[in-house]
Amino acid sequence: MTTAPYEIRPIGHVESSITGREAAPKQGFEGAPDAWLVLDADVAEGIRDLAAGDEVFVLTWLHRARRDVLAVHPRDDPRNPETGVFSTRSQDRPNPIGLHRVRVAAVEGRRVRVRDLEAFDGTPIVDVKPVIAGGR
Amino acid sequence: MTTAPYEIRPIGHVESSITGREAAPKQGFEGAPDAWLVLDADVAEGIRDLAAGDEVFVLTWLHRARRDVLAVHPRDDPRNPETGVFSTRSQDRPNPIGLHRVRVAAVEGRRVRVRDLEAFDGTPIVDVKPVIAGGR
Repeated sequence: MTTAPYEIRPIGHVESSITGREAAPKQGFEGAPDAWLVLDADVAEGIRDLAAGDEVFVLTWLHRARRDVLAVHPRDDPRNPETGVFSTRSQDRPNPIGLHRVRVAAVEGRRVRVRDLEAFDGTPIVDVKPVIAGGR
Repeated sequence: MTTAPYEIRPIGHVESSITGREAAPKQGFEGAPDAWLVLDADVAEGIRDLAAGDEVFVLTWLHRARRDVLAVHPRDDPRNPETGVFSTRSQDRPNPIGLHRVRVAAVEGRRVRVRDLEAFDGTPIVDVKPVIAGGR
């Protein structure tokens, strides 16, 4: 099936104390620090109803990823058997979109403080969505 | 912050009996029919470890969406107060990526049958990720 490519335009970026690939925890719940979502001014209206306590999915663009990889050793550990990328959360995948479930700690203008976000400082944000019933 | 646009290259498409905007259920759990994820041949290796029973997030590109919308009446119901899009699951949003949590019913080659996928027939698929602990 022939489908056109589509263009992602970042809506903001992450501010985080995680700056190097080695320092990033493999999953947020293993202890990522608090971080900020900094929305671009032209889309900031879209977060006007976000509030402390909300649970959201943050979608990011993993701009350091390799896109030509279809199988990986999960968690970059060679002892884990090579696994198809769509059964892993590897950042290396054809469309390197990160999916992060986080809780909003505070909203200050177009800055949103969130808990347990596993993302490098400067990571582009592509979307924010509420978590709905059943964690969907 | 200046960030380049990024290019999404679909990895496949949805086959579904949902063909019109009006017919689409607003959330999968309200009763979407089974559907198929049809992976493109060049990325099919990435699903080699998917199996019946797996719970996955499917990310789609909502190619009929409007991208210039920052507030909507949730569920297209004018009785619902206008809400910033990042607090809704509206398909109209700056980067119209759909997020669908579904269960794999069967894998047949590069076709994956899934339960409760709310997506139009022909919707481009951009990623598939396992659901991990805590529904993340």
